[in-house]
Amino acid sequence: MTRRAARRVPELVARAREGDPASVARLITLVEDGSPMLREVMTALREHAGGAHVLGITGPPGVGKSTSTNALVAGMRRAGKRVGVLAIDPSSPFSGGALLGDRVRMGDHALDREVFIRSMGARGHLGGLAWSTPQAVRVLDAAGCDVVVVETVGVGQSEVEVAGLADTTLVLVAPGMGDGIQAAKAGILEIGDVYVVNKADRDGADRTRRELRTMLAMAERHDGVWLPPVVRTVASTGEGIDALLAEVDRHADWLAESGELARRRTLRARREVEAIALAALRERWDQPGRGADLDDLARRVAAGEQDPYSAAEELLAQD
Amino acid sequence: MTRRAARRVPELVARAREGDPASVARLITLVEDGSPMLREVMTALREHAGGAHVLGITGPPGVGKSTSTNALVAGMRRAGKRVGVLAIDPSSPFSGGALLGDRVRMGDHALDREVFIRSMGARGHLGGLAWSTPQAVRVLDAAGCDVVVVETVGVGQSEVEVAGLADTTLVLVAPGMGDGIQAAKAGILEIGDVYVVNKADRDGADRTRRELRTMLAMAERHDGVWLPPVVRTVASTGEGIDALLAEVDRHADWLAESGELARRRTLRARREVEAIALAALRERWDQPGRGADLDDLARRVAAGEQDPYSAAEELLAQD
Repeated sequence: MTRRAARRVPELVARAREGDPASVARLITLVEDGSPMLREVMTALREHAGGAHVLGITGPPGVGKSTSTNALVAGMRRAGKRVGVLAIDPSSPFSGGALLGDRVRMGDHALDREVFIRSMGARGHLGGLAWSTPQAVRVLDAAGCDVVVVETVGVGQSEVEVAGLADTTLVLVAPGMGDGIQAAKAGILEIGDVYVVNKADRDGADRTRRELRTMLAMAERHDGVWLPPVVRTVASTGEGIDALLAEVDRHADWLAESGELARRRTLRARREVEAIALAALRERWDQPGRGADLDDLARRVAAGEQDPYSAAEELLAQD
Repeated sequence: MTRRAARRVPELVARAREGDPASVARLITLVEDGSPMLREVMTALREHAGGAHVLGITGPPGVGKSTSTNALVAGMRRAGKRVGVLAIDPSSPFSGGALLGDRVRMGDHALDREVFIRSMGARGHLGGLAWSTPQAVRVLDAAGCDVVVVETVGVGQSEVEVAGLADTTLVLVAPGMGDGIQAAKAGILEIGDVYVVNKADRDGADRTRRELRTMLAMAERHDGVWLPPVVRTVASTGEGIDALLAEVDRHADWLAESGELARRRTLRARREVEAIALAALRERWDQPGRGADLDDLARRVAAGEQDPYSAAEELLAQD
């Protein structure tokens, strides 16, 4: 099966580059499965990727991420862009996929051949998202997408990871969520390039926007130059979406001019290479018959017979 | 500074074992900081740990985790137990600590010398929680705690990680949150040993409990034997807390009798050893002057000059 499928990689890649949805989907499935064919796939895609702008979308549950993604995709389609959407759900590590069908989720664009939509569950293993997302992005990029949207369902650590993977990160908040401690707790002040107060027709939108602006002006930001704008939207009606897309374009221009784009992409590649190396190591450590088997070491640490540091050293001494 | 502090490790460990709060706190700070002294600390603690029952508490935001932890700690104190509490906040990777003071957070127990309370922010790096939590647990364990409660703020991936770190995992839900898709999406059906419907004085508590029971009976569970009970509580008044603690004790007995305790602790140690080994490798990869510098490799991958797999191989070839 593997050998037979492997012979088909060049064909799959060629078809995906032509924008064939089934081939794009198949390649992303290979990424999700951690297929041994990936090496060949990524080598084949290498020279065809790098053209897409990667747009991360994150924010707390209930803020309207799916609706906003849908509205943004509609706007990009009006501009004639080919769009890929990866909806990452780190909360479903066991299922190996999302529960909601991709078509149901993004009803407006389900039949548009210039829009690729894919839900991916983050795997339970360490570095799952860091490992699979850049490779899925590369597939969509090589398939000719002008923009790849990476939407993360959930909060917390995953937001930060998305920020590391995107060229431009949108952080969505809703009125009433601007309260200082909550925003700071969520770590959102450091990671956004453009902030969006969605559901801006609700009470308190102006206040939330003001508060966010004040907090952003005070926050210590790593890049030190770009002051993130705060845009108001009502994603369900499309209000403010064009203004939001204009800010995204402005940020993309700034990224290119300032050299920040290359810096971010190098960081992303760094995490990807690291994640691939770590996955290879873990596989090696799991092989039985090695001198210091990880399971044996773990049993000794659990029993209090060995400290975890010397166990880690024994593990590494053999590579 | 490091040399001077290093001389003090045996003294710190001795004092922590006597239950001196300042020494316990200092040791956990060393864990949070990833101090080079940790190796010596963990070696010194090794033979004194293993006695504490590790109780994980998780659930979506707003379900009453802090209040429940507070009520559970009160119940354990009535039973004369010494208790450690680690409140993990994966959503604050940048701050290096939690915003809310530990004392404010756990007002009822702030002055009780038999209760150690500590908030820890998860670090932004890969494996942060897997690396630091077991070591902080070991500190509290060696300090004579009968129970170490690990409460995770937030949802998603972190829930799963907590489940991997605890002997017994409590999953909290509130009435109205039992809706099938939501529960399955959060991946909570696989990870709990005891389920708690908190705020059980609200409408819909019975229904949520029934739904949870049905879903748990249908869910494929990895251990295959223990059917998790569903307990109703009103943490704010203490209602149901004794019944909940009785279920926790019943699970602890089952863990010991079935051999599952050793299995879980070996798994936990495995993750810890792995996380320490990975951290050591990353440090090595970051050192300049090596043949294939990770930054150089990342730049070539970002520029499309090299595929990420061959870059990872070059990185590993040098170790």
